[in-house]
Amino acid sequence: MQRMPARIGDPLAAIDTPALCVDLGPFERNLARMADATKGIRLRPHAKSHKCATIARAQLARGAVGICCQKTDEAAAFVDAGVRDVLVTNEVVGAPKAARLAALARSATVGVLVDAGVAVATLSDAASRAGVQLDAYVEVDVGANRCGVRPGPAVLELARAISGAPGLRLRGLQAYQGAAQHLRKPAERAAAIASAVADARRMRELLLGAGIACDIVTGAGTGTWQHERDSGVYDELQPGSYVFMDADYGRNIAGAADLAFEQSLFVVASVMSTPASDRAIIDAGLKAFAFDSGLPLVHARGGAEYVKASDEHGVLRTSDGPPVTLGERIWLVPGHCDPTVNLYDWIVAVRDGVVEGVWPVEARGALG
Amino acid sequence: MQRMPARIGDPLAAIDTPALCVDLGPFERNLARMADATKGIRLRPHAKSHKCATIARAQLARGAVGICCQKTDEAAAFVDAGVRDVLVTNEVVGAPKAARLAALARSATVGVLVDAGVAVATLSDAASRAGVQLDAYVEVDVGANRCGVRPGPAVLELARAISGAPGLRLRGLQAYQGAAQHLRKPAERAAAIASAVADARRMRELLLGAGIACDIVTGAGTGTWQHERDSGVYDELQPGSYVFMDADYGRNIAGAADLAFEQSLFVVASVMSTPASDRAIIDAGLKAFAFDSGLPLVHARGGAEYVKASDEHGVLRTSDGPPVTLGERIWLVPGHCDPTVNLYDWIVAVRDGVVEGVWPVEARGALG
Repeated sequence: MQRMPARIGDPLAAIDTPALCVDLGPFERNLARMADATKGIRLRPHAKSHKCATIARAQLARGAVGICCQKTDEAAAFVDAGVRDVLVTNEVVGAPKAARLAALARSATVGVLVDAGVAVATLSDAASRAGVQLDAYVEVDVGANRCGVRPGPAVLELARAISGAPGLRLRGLQAYQGAAQHLRKPAERAAAIASAVADARRMRELLLGAGIACDIVTGAGTGTWQHERDSGVYDELQPGSYVFMDADYGRNIAGAADLAFEQSLFVVASVMSTPASDRAIIDAGLKAFAFDSGLPLVHARGGAEYVKASDEHGVLRTSDGPPVTLGERIWLVPGHCDPTVNLYDWIVAVRDGVVEGVWPVEARGALG
Repeated sequence: MQRMPARIGDPLAAIDTPALCVDLGPFERNLARMADATKGIRLRPHAKSHKCATIARAQLARGAVGICCQKTDEAAAFVDAGVRDVLVTNEVVGAPKAARLAALARSATVGVLVDAGVAVATLSDAASRAGVQLDAYVEVDVGANRCGVRPGPAVLELARAISGAPGLRLRGLQAYQGAAQHLRKPAERAAAIASAVADARRMRELLLGAGIACDIVTGAGTGTWQHERDSGVYDELQPGSYVFMDADYGRNIAGAADLAFEQSLFVVASVMSTPASDRAIIDAGLKAFAFDSGLPLVHARGGAEYVKASDEHGVLRTSDGPPVTLGERIWLVPGHCDPTVNLYDWIVAVRDGVVEGVWPVEARGALG
């Protein structure tokens, strides 16, 4: 773990760069907006976005029923930090990982997804050996074309297998339409979720008709959650990025039903070289941002555009506007929040120009 | 820091996935090839590629004069691990970072680049306060269009300023042509370095003609080092990626003068879902690979291609070939080694199917 890039009470100028910062004003408004908008439904925010127990605790304090994780080791980091209800919204394959997952269920409610019969046996065995119960959900592929079984008899078959498996408790269905989150137009997102809702409803009815319990249909993300909330089918929502937002979500066109989540996540960098009138170099490159969803955006400063990255450098193209000066701090909006956060050991929480907290990113690098 | 994904003596099947692995056979051959080929010149390998003290020690044991780093905190990690000669091949801007750098010079020879007059004063002040000497190099932009001063009188001016600055020792010139490393054709790389060599020679002669010492011209990378070695101008070489290689370097067309460095770096992943006949999902996505230089390549296995990533998932398109099975281990070549290594706390060193070492990546996340 790297040293902290700032101390509580520091002015912004004292933050060592590059550093990952959260602006607490917009951050807290985002938390409150989502909590308010989901009062009638279970909110289980996805912690893969922030990987930070301080943020998970803030979400739980505002009414979240638990958190989602994507990896066994990520879940372990949050259970170690005191979180008592974690759903791994992913398949967990192989006996060693299943055993680690089951061990967590000694100190927390732990859920996991299943999309193959062999996993039912593995998880059941691990839970039985550990003397615990794991909550299990059948993952239904409602259009993301990633994991999960397609809507049909295989869903019922897996649900039946889980119901009969010692150590497992069938809780319901995971129906996350990940491919819909970044569809740019509101009507495209609405249509994709309408289709996912129809699939989820059909599968829930299939289970109920066969006398199998289906207490929770869970899913949704920051791009579409209001559609799942209003569907009458989903019982639980899993948005993650809403706490931070990013440049890619910023490219979604807002619809009438969309809440105005604000950008709260930034990387602060320093200008380390001003070699030409049209070029300045900052100290944040491929190891300071994830680039899968495009380049970072320079925030609240004209005359400079992030145009190129190498490992430890970012190239700004400078143009009309205030000249970029050596040592100047540049604030940037990451292209994609989740994998960018995963590059940092600390989140520097700032408010009104002062560092208010330095939060460990406990689950950073929790890949296993 | 995350737990170790394997233990010494484990078979490959016991490595928890995803994990970063080094195959020791090709890795050691790469080390030996570069050491042999640079016997007549100073080799200072770049540690930004591996961030791992175990690897730095192996390079020093084979004759390297020291290592390069790109960040002050990276240098600190290696000095803490016992490395006694570190060149930060980058500008270090601002008094706090300069003070941290100077503190390292109490226990190691520490060098740094300069491309602006104001930095001379900052570094001189930091070195004087710490009671140490910092080695300084003028960075000349020999075609990379990143940091550095363009060849011309400004190089002499900076060299003069360094020579007269208390606490600083002018060592020479940094002349790294980073933009040449991935030019695909051997003739393109040769031409780019011929131009860099001409610039470096001219600037060295400018300094010497003015009675200023220029003991070391340093630079070069894995794509071009043999040209700098044979130039008669460069005194020191800085290749980094040669220990590992990656898919992007694999796309360089080899010339007659190129050594055959072998791929030694892999990510081992597991198949976690086989939802369709033409699709399998592995447990390694945007947090397990850097994607700036393209997708990872499936290694030594037909019938599967990595075609898409989300945060924690990789999508394989499967076709003719042995069927991809649930739980199967897939070995992959990262698109870009440096930022991929930066995602991992551990490198699992394997030989002949057995884990021989588990090496901490001490400088992972050393951004400051």
